[in-house]
Amino acid sequence: MSSSWGQQLKLSIFGQSHGEAIGVTIDGLPAGMVIDMPRLLAEMARRAPGQSALTTPRKEADAPEFLSGVLNGRTTGQPICLVIRNTSQRSRDYGDGVDLVRPGHADYSGHVRYFGFEDWRGGGSFSGRLTAPIVAAGALCSQWLEEKGVRIACHVQQLGSVKDMSFLDAAPDKDYTYLKEMHLPVLTQGLDERMAEEVMAARSEQDSIGGVLECMITGLPAGLGAPFFDSVESVLSHLLFSVPAVKGVEFGAGFGFAGMRGSQANDAFRMAEGRIVTETNHAGGVNGGVSNGMPVVFRSAIRPTPSIAKTQQTVSLKAGENAELAVRGRHDPCILPRAVPVIEAMAAIAVMDLWKERAQCLM
Amino acid sequence: MSSSWGQQLKLSIFGQSHGEAIGVTIDGLPAGMVIDMPRLLAEMARRAPGQSALTTPRKEADAPEFLSGVLNGRTTGQPICLVIRNTSQRSRDYGDGVDLVRPGHADYSGHVRYFGFEDWRGGGSFSGRLTAPIVAAGALCSQWLEEKGVRIACHVQQLGSVKDMSFLDAAPDKDYTYLKEMHLPVLTQGLDERMAEEVMAARSEQDSIGGVLECMITGLPAGLGAPFFDSVESVLSHLLFSVPAVKGVEFGAGFGFAGMRGSQANDAFRMAEGRIVTETNHAGGVNGGVSNGMPVVFRSAIRPTPSIAKTQQTVSLKAGENAELAVRGRHDPCILPRAVPVIEAMAAIAVMDLWKERAQCLM
Amino acid sequence: MSSSWGQQLKLSIFGQSHGEAIGVTIDGLPAGMVIDMPRLLAEMARRAPGQSALTTPRKEADAPEFLSGVLNGRTTGQPICLVIRNTSQRSRDYGDGVDLVRPGHADYSGHVRYFGFEDWRGGGSFSGRLTAPIVAAGALCSQWLEEKGVRIACHVQQLGSVKDMSFLDAAPDKDYTYLKEMHLPVLTQGLDERMAEEVMAARSEQDSIGGVLECMITGLPAGLGAPFFDSVESVLSHLLFSVPAVKGVEFGAGFGFAGMRGSQANDAFRMAEGRIVTETNHAGGVNGGVSNGMPVVFRSAIRPTPSIAKTQQTVSLKAGENAELAVRGRHDPCILPRAVPVIEAMAAIAVMDLWKERAQCLM
Amino acid sequence: MSSSWGQQLKLSIFGQSHGEAIGVTIDGLPAGMVIDMPRLLAEMARRAPGQSALTTPRKEADAPEFLSGVLNGRTTGQPICLVIRNTSQRSRDYGDGVDLVRPGHADYSGHVRYFGFEDWRGGGSFSGRLTAPIVAAGALCSQWLEEKGVRIACHVQQLGSVKDMSFLDAAPDKDYTYLKEMHLPVLTQGLDERMAEEVMAARSEQDSIGGVLECMITGLPAGLGAPFFDSVESVLSHLLFSVPAVKGVEFGAGFGFAGMRGSQANDAFRMAEGRIVTETNHAGGVNGGVSNGMPVVFRSAIRPTPSIAKTQQTVSLKAGENAELAVRGRHDPCILPRAVPVIEAMAAIAVMDLWKERAQCLM
Repeated sequence: MSSSWGQQLKLSIFGQSHGEAIGVTIDGLPAGMVIDMPRLLAEMARRAPGQSALTTPRKEADAPEFLSGVLNGRTTGQPICLVIRNTSQRSRDYGDGVDLVRPGHADYSGHVRYFGFEDWRGGGSFSGRLTAPIVAAGALCSQWLEEKGVRIACHVQQLGSVKDMSFLDAAPDKDYTYLKEMHLPVLTQGLDERMAEEVMAARSEQDSIGGVLECMITGLPAGLGAPFFDSVESVLSHLLFSVPAVKGVEFGAGFGFAGMRGSQANDAFRMAEGRIVTETNHAGGVNGGVSNGMPVVFRSAIRPTPSIAKTQQTVSLKAGENAELAVRGRHDPCILPRAVPVIEAMAAIAVMDLWKERAQCLM
Repeated sequence: MSSSWGQQLKLSIFGQSHGEAIGVTIDGLPAGMVIDMPRLLAEMARRAPGQSALTTPRKEADAPEFLSGVLNGRTTGQPICLVIRNTSQRSRDYGDGVDLVRPGHADYSGHVRYFGFEDWRGGGSFSGRLTAPIVAAGALCSQWLEEKGVRIACHVQQLGSVKDMSFLDAAPDKDYTYLKEMHLPVLTQGLDERMAEEVMAARSEQDSIGGVLECMITGLPAGLGAPFFDSVESVLSHLLFSVPAVKGVEFGAGFGFAGMRGSQANDAFRMAEGRIVTETNHAGGVNGGVSNGMPVVFRSAIRPTPSIAKTQQTVSLKAGENAELAVRGRHDPCILPRAVPVIEAMAAIAVMDLWKERAQCLM
Repeated sequence: MSSSWGQQLKLSIFGQSHGEAIGVTIDGLPAGMVIDMPRLLAEMARRAPGQSALTTPRKEADAPEFLSGVLNGRTTGQPICLVIRNTSQRSRDYGDGVDLVRPGHADYSGHVRYFGFEDWRGGGSFSGRLTAPIVAAGALCSQWLEEKGVRIACHVQQLGSVKDMSFLDAAPDKDYTYLKEMHLPVLTQGLDERMAEEVMAARSEQDSIGGVLECMITGLPAGLGAPFFDSVESVLSHLLFSVPAVKGVEFGAGFGFAGMRGSQANDAFRMAEGRIVTETNHAGGVNGGVSNGMPVVFRSAIRPTPSIAKTQQTVSLKAGENAELAVRGRHDPCILPRAVPVIEAMAAIAVMDLWKERAQCLM
Repeated sequence: MSSSWGQQLKLSIFGQSHGEAIGVTIDGLPAGMVIDMPRLLAEMARRAPGQSALTTPRKEADAPEFLSGVLNGRTTGQPICLVIRNTSQRSRDYGDGVDLVRPGHADYSGHVRYFGFEDWRGGGSFSGRLTAPIVAAGALCSQWLEEKGVRIACHVQQLGSVKDMSFLDAAPDKDYTYLKEMHLPVLTQGLDERMAEEVMAARSEQDSIGGVLECMITGLPAGLGAPFFDSVESVLSHLLFSVPAVKGVEFGAGFGFAGMRGSQANDAFRMAEGRIVTETNHAGGVNGGVSNGMPVVFRSAIRPTPSIAKTQQTVSLKAGENAELAVRGRHDPCILPRAVPVIEAMAAIAVMDLWKERAQCLM
């Protein structure tokens, strides 16, 4: 509990990494929407492993199946249940119940949570694999939002010691769709190569590396969100912190506000072609929890993949004593490339819920 | 929408800064709890203005009144409605509808949100004043949690350019109640004076200053929270981002993970006196969204108070043109001292909801 | 738990009969609505005691106060908290904790529910008095719905042995506002006098009497509601069964369907002036949980007031043994006249929530 | 919207009668429960068609598949997604979009609801087939409740003109499991044969027939539920009115209260072997929305199956004019036998949610 989320748009997620299937039920999409299947599959492909030398060479045949809510390629307005079979379960890799709990993973906390009855195989419910149906759901929301003029872009703002510029300093009305084509999407040309080197270095040392993803949502009207309790930041962060590996979320200047004076931090309002805009966007498009019409900009801190081949200190649950562990298998030395479409998906889901809430007020 | 929150513990907030009253309804407190009124008032006093030279000298007589749910000093198990009258409304300070929207405030976004019908006076629903009933509600939750052995401590981890050490590097089992007595609670002796100087400097320049609050929750058992969607981080961040001025939230190493390798970031599990602990606590007490029994440590970025006396650029809603504004009145040059009990309250509310959810599983 | 309700329109109720106040917080009303205060007070007056010889002569000065969400007589779009002070608490009538539990009342079940800490005075949270803020909330929803062309009418369809005709057999487009003027609203002229005689007879025997209220909602478009789980019937019945004394709810032919053949029960569809209508309305305006554009007609069974002066058998909680009880005080021999505005209010609240949900689909 | 339900136990339903699959996700079952699969299949078999001459001879191979939440035959504590493939879709029976809307069905209201994009085939989301996963979910809840001593029994209290006695007049502590073995479960011996005759008579006339199901829940402790808004009656009726064909719900004496005096209606409290009981049970085990420890007894009015072979009057959506329709295919002349396990399942789901809510208070 709770595997469900949302007020106007409702999601219910299920599945374990090595169970029969993973999936999500989505309620609240409008009736009659032609599902852009190539686009949905393209988004899922971005999240899938094996896309480049930077990610795990594992293959997942993540073909989503629509069990409900679609007829003749259109949404019916009824809940959509979308499942992905776990074909490559390779359960032979897994023994009889969890024993050596992997540092940085939910093996131990999940064991307590579910009293030892959890499906521990491959991380079970805690596996990053659960984000596959999220990406599919997000693709549907994105498609809907794009018809409204909303665009969501994401880049790697930091990877190890390499830092990219911020969307806050970039042109908001530029076309950022090219970022979707990049394995390591960056705003500063060539920086992706330097980031790739950091990943390769970590991998060669049987290690992994973390970073920061920055996301920008443009085309949002002012007036979405609320002061208490469903601020734009609350709704977005709630979903973002559901993504495994996300350990920090900030909006606009975020933690940078700590060193600022009010006179620097405040975004001056200005008239521009009859519209009210702000000169700077330190607030990240949100004042008092409500969108102000400027791009919503947020960053998510992504921890290094906990699964590393290096030997680590841990405990044996069965023996109740200290032990050592070297995580076997092929794992991502850096999850950021694959996390990009997940963050975008969560943004799309959150914004669609906020948009629908707002729509009630416009009757 | 939505002014309500919670699943096992439910809050419903209401009120505008200069309306009749502000308040909150709390449902889900157990029956029979003797309300520790002095403690509740003490928490509210910490949030109240005028506590020191560092905050606004405005006085608020924030006497909470229990309209329901209490009999003979004990909770009845029925919903508690707690209201605070707005006695010092001083509405003569306010004109006829919002015109010059204050930079950094919700004047503009709120105006769009509520179609110009909002109670704009003093920030209306967006006022920091709304956190007064939150502090009262949090005091009740804290009292309940303390009986379970849970402790919540908070300090100013950064103020302007001055940085304190982290709870992650401090002794988790130390008694931190002394922090509650300090106007600028810090872990490093003497640092509060340097912070105070930063505040005074900002004030003397008719400016304000931001910072970071760090909070630690000890005594939480492992097993609270969930992978999707109600991770410990999701539940906490949802509430924290409802607090005006919070623009970033991170857990454990947070954004520091970005520069880390997995081998550094992972917290090794160890046996200690028969219990499973971690050697470090970069994860901030949460693995895979579920508490692991270590202290939950998180930080909230607090933006500088937007209300400053310095002249700022803005627009006139009525004239539809650029304008200048110097915010009148007495405002906090730094909100952090008063934000401390608010962050603690939100932590208590979030944890109590998670605790109650967990309790269902232990039947 | 749970004292809150609703998805698009949210209510949070609080208060005990003899506590400081009772009230409700309403979130989801549109901004800018001019509150029709005379109308709201008129609705509350219909529910208030002492309206006629048929109800209790107790007086309640139920002046509602808006603590929030209203400015200059208009809704601001922010949550409205509406409270009613309990001025005539007369707590001298009540002893030290509940002892002799009143048959038919929640004295005993509430005692268990709240572990003996409940505010037992005057029924506490279970008192019919809690419906006063519901009527106020319903008046606001009704006002909003009337602008959309929705009308809600209610009459006493049965009182003791006297039965009125059904709305199903009456003209749906007639103006039924005259019913609001009647103490015992009926469709068949003169029947109210016969019903009044039944009430007087019950009263003279220190007894009370039950009945059935029938409600009709006209002007609802087709398409509101859902198959699972928020059918029109589900949403309405959820609220109706919150009303103390309601023990049955049926739609259209309701329990009468039991004796019917399908060929009788089915409502034939017909074209009428370009619109699709049904010839009969056994379904009560709802097919498959979704409104079909015909009047929504439902009935609520109202149990006789449990508070009667006659001596009854009960137990003493304190002594743990059998006892006798004659309920003192002045009570309604028949609650139906006062329940009419409550049922109408619940209908308005339910329909407004359904309407707002529907509005999202019409973007 | 909304296809989800529940606070402590959460259900999310999906699927259309002739789509790929139907199913439900259940969150909130405890970890470690050994799933009694034969029992679950037995419950589903009771709901399946073709059980006797009284129901449709259609065959459905309703093999439920657990996609998640189960490992080695035990619940893991994570959400369970249970799907049933629609193998016998026979979509050749269905043309190109709905045209002649079936009287009594949701063809028309659903068409409006989903703007003509609905999956109309076989009733789509409105099909009684959606109750199959509900029965499976209910079987899991019943299994859990039985370990707590809760028993749920159901019988046909009325079918056409034949009426059975009430549970209110029967021994509450009798073993009623024999009812589960009967096609037309009744309390009065031989009455099922007379009811069967009514069904056969209706069928021979190409017609259908309605009735009333009565359900009794024993073993519930006092103290479940709440006054506002989640009374036992509210929670149960919300789910019951989601069941297609249910048009009325009453508790205890229900609509019979209308003709009663308070002195008759009130259930006298008595001490019995140290426990507090009531002498009669007109309240159906619920006072003021909270269980009082007596059996919870309720009745559901079931309308006659709308699908009848007799020619009926309707309209053509495509032509926009009046038309005639004789529903083809093999349909149940009486849905009551198959509705019994559905009502029991809804009762189990509702009670488990109430039980879990209560468990939080007992910490």
